[in-house]
Amino acid sequence: MKHILLLGAGRSSYSLIQYLLAHATTEDWHVTVGDFSVVLAQEKVGSHLRGSAIHFDINDTALADSEIAKADVVISLLPPSLHFKAAQSCLKFNKHLLTASYISPEIKSLGAEVEAKGLLFLNEMGLDPGIDHLSAMQIIERLKAQEAKISAFRSYTGGLVAPEYDNNPWNYKFTWNPRNVVLAGQGTAKYIINGQYKYVPYNRLFTHLEDVSIQNITYEGYPNRDSLMYREIYGIANIPTLLRGTLRKRGFCQSWNAFVQLGMTDDSYVLENSANMTYREFTNSFLQYSKVLLVEEKLASLLGVSTDSELIKKIDWLGLLGHENAGLERATPAQVMQRLLEKKWKLDEGDKDMIVMQHIFEYESAQGDFCTLRSSLVVKGENEQDTAMSKTVGLPLGIVAKLLLQGKIDLKGVHIPVQKQIYEPVLQELEAYGVNFSEIITK
Amino acid sequence: MKHILLLGAGRSSYSLIQYLLAHATTEDWHVTVGDFSVVLAQEKVGSHLRGSAIHFDINDTALADSEIAKADVVISLLPPSLHFKAAQSCLKFNKHLLTASYISPEIKSLGAEVEAKGLLFLNEMGLDPGIDHLSAMQIIERLKAQEAKISAFRSYTGGLVAPEYDNNPWNYKFTWNPRNVVLAGQGTAKYIINGQYKYVPYNRLFTHLEDVSIQNITYEGYPNRDSLMYREIYGIANIPTLLRGTLRKRGFCQSWNAFVQLGMTDDSYVLENSANMTYREFTNSFLQYSKVLLVEEKLASLLGVSTDSELIKKIDWLGLLGHENAGLERATPAQVMQRLLEKKWKLDEGDKDMIVMQHIFEYESAQGDFCTLRSSLVVKGENEQDTAMSKTVGLPLGIVAKLLLQGKIDLKGVHIPVQKQIYEPVLQELEAYGVNFSEIITK
Repeated sequence: MKHILLLGAGRSSYSLIQYLLAHATTEDWHVTVGDFSVVLAQEKVGSHLRGSAIHFDINDTALADSEIAKADVVISLLPPSLHFKAAQSCLKFNKHLLTASYISPEIKSLGAEVEAKGLLFLNEMGLDPGIDHLSAMQIIERLKAQEAKISAFRSYTGGLVAPEYDNNPWNYKFTWNPRNVVLAGQGTAKYIINGQYKYVPYNRLFTHLEDVSIQNITYEGYPNRDSLMYREIYGIANIPTLLRGTLRKRGFCQSWNAFVQLGMTDDSYVLENSANMTYREFTNSFLQYSKVLLVEEKLASLLGVSTDSELIKKIDWLGLLGHENAGLERATPAQVMQRLLEKKWKLDEGDKDMIVMQHIFEYESAQGDFCTLRSSLVVKGENEQDTAMSKTVGLPLGIVAKLLLQGKIDLKGVHIPVQKQIYEPVLQELEAYGVNFSEIITK
Repeated sequence: MKHILLLGAGRSSYSLIQYLLAHATTEDWHVTVGDFSVVLAQEKVGSHLRGSAIHFDINDTALADSEIAKADVVISLLPPSLHFKAAQSCLKFNKHLLTASYISPEIKSLGAEVEAKGLLFLNEMGLDPGIDHLSAMQIIERLKAQEAKISAFRSYTGGLVAPEYDNNPWNYKFTWNPRNVVLAGQGTAKYIINGQYKYVPYNRLFTHLEDVSIQNITYEGYPNRDSLMYREIYGIANIPTLLRGTLRKRGFCQSWNAFVQLGMTDDSYVLENSANMTYREFTNSFLQYSKVLLVEEKLASLLGVSTDSELIKKIDWLGLLGHENAGLERATPAQVMQRLLEKKWKLDEGDKDMIVMQHIFEYESAQGDFCTLRSSLVVKGENEQDTAMSKTVGLPLGIVAKLLLQGKIDLKGVHIPVQKQIYEPVLQELEAYGVNFSEIITK
């Protein structure tokens, strides 16, 4: 019997746990789900004979070591900053490690040691990063095999509320870690277009948009982090255009930009009076002092809109002009925003989420035709637990764990999933779960 | 004989070295000036019998220790990040330490140890921070002694080119560390006004201005770092309004803001092609791609001005639209900007600099009068070496070193200069060097 240890039983773990338990009997696995809250873990595992729920705390090294020592493969859904501790323990006890998070320099630095021990630490094996890599590489290597000359690659992903349940003025609800959404884009985005390097600082990110159309809906995409490094990773080092971006419903970015401009998403300092201030005072603390002007008037003036504009109405709808108490001790602006948005952008009972992804390739075919290839993915959630996000983040991890335990992957070292031995079988199995790309090529 | 060791013989050291050498005979001192460049140190020391110039490298611990062990007091004009190494060595050999830099959390953490050893590590003993603290405290404690109720304190400082030599379109030349000017304001400025906390992120800092008039010239002031913490430090914890700011000639901030918006002052990442790009390509890398628009047109559109506006002309005057090669290997945007600006904003031969400072207090006197007190300082440089900046940064350090060696200061521990035993004698002696505040009180 093989043992799988899954760390973290939060929002994104549902589909993965279902997948692992569903395969446990045929594959002869035992699945242990560890979470700080054993209740949460137990809820997800249920009464499955081949599943168990345990209390797990990565900072309790003795506990972490003893559990990891028992496993054959460890899947970490912990917050990214905690993966390294899991990685150290996996290295100590010669265990494979799978995560859905961006590869960190720390984990990367373990590469030689991981490889020498014959282990695989596979990162970025979720949705974005994850399915985006798998599906991009499948197309890139197919086009290369066809001797096409790729001149541009743009790739966009968004996690949104499904259109049927998109009923608030922001056209957005949280379907993923709210903290990540509030902090999204901090730093400088980098990409290349027709050979020109482009750098987009945070304060311009949400106005630096391109339209992207998927299944008759037009979204807006803003550049996501460092696209430049994927030229090497994807094996297209000399491509003149490469941009990875994040999708939102139209109008969202321009409105969100108001908070960026005001400084409300800053997570680097603690507000002086966060425990006792109202949301209106919070908003006012980012506006210049005035003896006469109302908060609404100062806000509208700063944002260059009228006080009865849609933007001011959207901000008001969130409660940021109201007298409710924020009530958070020693909070950063980002924490105050997160607390408020978690209430306002919550998925209501019965709401379904949606994942949209689109790759756009431009290339010259071997026959000399100039072609545009659009490969699109739309996945909708089944219900509040079995969300599209949970499915697309969790299933790639589950499938690759299965392949690894079946001995079908011989990759060693610290990697992200750009290898045919991973993308082929994982994408194929994902289709059975409704994760299908549809492709249109125009000349 | 007492030994003074001065670390750093750069731009700001001239007046300090002159002061120390001028007092060396009467005070029975030997003054050692250490710099990475012994030539630079020797130039400043000249042939004075009581001065010597040495090669000094704070990262060479054996060398640093042996020199610090010989001193009675150490003055560090090293880059702020290097003070802590000097501080550790001073602690090891029981030496006093004086700097003109903001107190760092690391140095602060040495407080108990420094005090237990009967030493003084005095920081922020230059101009700003430095003379601003001394002069503010003198007024605050005088007003308190008069039982006045202080309701507001605003304090502004600027290092500028003197009006007679202010002959470029930016109305600015470097009179101080260019790197600090390029990076100025990164982070979030914090202050309080009529009891309302205000937070100003970097992207709004240079449009968040107040007018300040000194000797018939109106300057613009932007908020400087964290003003809030000075409420405790100055002993005015409950003051409803406290703002510290930096002064520039009018129009400068709005123009500089263009670079902030574009992202050209970012020091957090390395440009992909900095060695081979022109300044025009540098500028274009912060602008959205266009097949048809010129860099000038995209820039004007982004900044919301016309292509023949003063702002575009100022940017063009710097060479940012030209075809000269930037020619810096692996440079950050801020480094590219610094290299360019160092050429364009250089003090020409014969140019003189100027320091302006103004404290504005509002208070209710014991008699019930509502008063405004303006205390202003204008210092002009003598020549390119004996600049106003060198004088106002260096002389406070020199004077306090003298007082310390004369046994006239009994303060122990890690401090900034807010004590009467420091501000009284230092301000008094500064007057002899033309550092005089003039005060106007209006009711």
